[in-house]
Amino acid sequence: MTLRIRIDLGYDGTGFSGWAAQPGLRTVEGVLSEALSTVLRAPEPVRLTVAGRTDAGVHARGQVVHADVDDSAFARLPGRSDRSPEAAAVARLSGVLPADVVVRRVTLAPPGFDARFSALRRRYRYRVCDDPGAADPLRRHETVLVRDRLDIAAMDESARGLVGLHDFAAFCKRREGATTVRTLLEYAWRRGDDGVLEATVVADAFCHSMVRALVGAVVPVGEGRHPAGWPAEVLAGRTRDPRVKVMPAHGLSLEEVVYPPEGELAARAEQARATRTLDR
Amino acid sequence: MTLRIRIDLGYDGTGFSGWAAQPGLRTVEGVLSEALSTVLRAPEPVRLTVAGRTDAGVHARGQVVHADVDDSAFARLPGRSDRSPEAAAVARLSGVLPADVVVRRVTLAPPGFDARFSALRRRYRYRVCDDPGAADPLRRHETVLVRDRLDIAAMDESARGLVGLHDFAAFCKRREGATTVRTLLEYAWRRGDDGVLEATVVADAFCHSMVRALVGAVVPVGEGRHPAGWPAEVLAGRTRDPRVKVMPAHGLSLEEVVYPPEGELAARAEQARATRTLDR
Repeated sequence: MTLRIRIDLGYDGTGFSGWAAQPGLRTVEGVLSEALSTVLRAPEPVRLTVAGRTDAGVHARGQVVHADVDDSAFARLPGRSDRSPEAAAVARLSGVLPADVVVRRVTLAPPGFDARFSALRRRYRYRVCDDPGAADPLRRHETVLVRDRLDIAAMDESARGLVGLHDFAAFCKRREGATTVRTLLEYAWRRGDDGVLEATVVADAFCHSMVRALVGAVVPVGEGRHPAGWPAEVLAGRTRDPRVKVMPAHGLSLEEVVYPPEGELAARAEQARATRTLDR
Repeated sequence: MTLRIRIDLGYDGTGFSGWAAQPGLRTVEGVLSEALSTVLRAPEPVRLTVAGRTDAGVHARGQVVHADVDDSAFARLPGRSDRSPEAAAVARLSGVLPADVVVRRVTLAPPGFDARFSALRRRYRYRVCDDPGAADPLRRHETVLVRDRLDIAAMDESARGLVGLHDFAAFCKRREGATTVRTLLEYAWRRGDDGVLEATVVADAFCHSMVRALVGAVVPVGEGRHPAGWPAEVLAGRTRDPRVKVMPAHGLSLEEVVYPPEGELAARAEQARATRTLDR
């Protein structure tokens, strides 16, 4: 018998060729699947389903994964300790995982839970530093440094103009058979106490490279090279615009994935499956 | 003619054998001195005086250094640009420095300024995570993970009991001819929004390994292994106590060095020189 577990994790994307397992490359999926197989003594690699497939170099603090595992192997995890199987799984995994992957929590998935399709929304953060005097060498791996000072008010205004249900084809790498219609629930820019600019980007789901293109559309507004309304014009064009630069991966992190209450998980998954085929 | 410049900088201490230049080792002093010599085309390495000589692995966000440099070489830094020599120095240095050292500001030092002896106080921060669920893989290089949950209220109470003018011999590596009398101005523990425990430690100056020993005295209180009054008892003993563990370097960072107003810099330096010989 198998049971479905939910794994909440974070990772420093610097040393990974992204989430998705690829032969010969170090990926988060590869590392986590191997760790889970080791801990559960599974005869073959444990298959994982992820909420947000992050690209090479992208980080995560709030990634969510599900896996269907052998129930008796899971029940045996505590060994002779008095821990629950869930707590034992966290401890065992942290014993075999490298330092750049942290499993925060392991829980039994409620009925109908699918890490990818049950998700209501994903929240990403993008960090930009426009002031050498505010640059923090300890956070350089998650912050993009730009040359010119940015107008944060113009950027925030510009970003808010993109919120809503739209065809985001202008900000997506097109894939066969995949819709580019998404609901952008929040897109805001603020300057933190440390002087670093942070974007919060929330959507039901994202297509490939969408967050980094949304950031790339608004940074030129901050530089004064385009008016605040320009990104909305690009959006309305519904076609990939070469003037929109996809920003570097290392400024981006997946912060949170939100799911509906237990009773609505299966219905949400069914709905999401019907409307998207290659979501992020 | 020489002029004295003040350099404000930060660094990720992970890849350094500490501040002080040592033959054959990568040190912050070595790297910065070489960068400054390159930029100023100085015939020999530029000598640096630092506010806080950090140990191997210790970080800094608010380090301060002074250097006496050739005034005409400094004036030539902008080249044909319309930048000030100070702004040109920041740009040129960032062009030659590695990514783990960031120069935030270069300014002409006011009369009487000495980065080490004019300082009124130094502020350090120490980060401890006691919850795997709160561990941030992106900040693992500056956060020490401990196994058990810590009682932050007991730790904070305990820390505050150490504040004042004391002989900190119990928390210092003794050095010949150096006093271990210091004024601990602030020592407080709080749990941040991210669940990580942070100590703020402020003193006029610190002796060697003092902050890490002050943290090592209070963590056992948080673990419930000693009462809150224990660190004050150790302090009163005035002798190095083997029960106080010097905590790992990578949790520590020098956040700020505070100087008096311009007119008091020289007097402050004279006073500090008289009372300390091997300060930190």
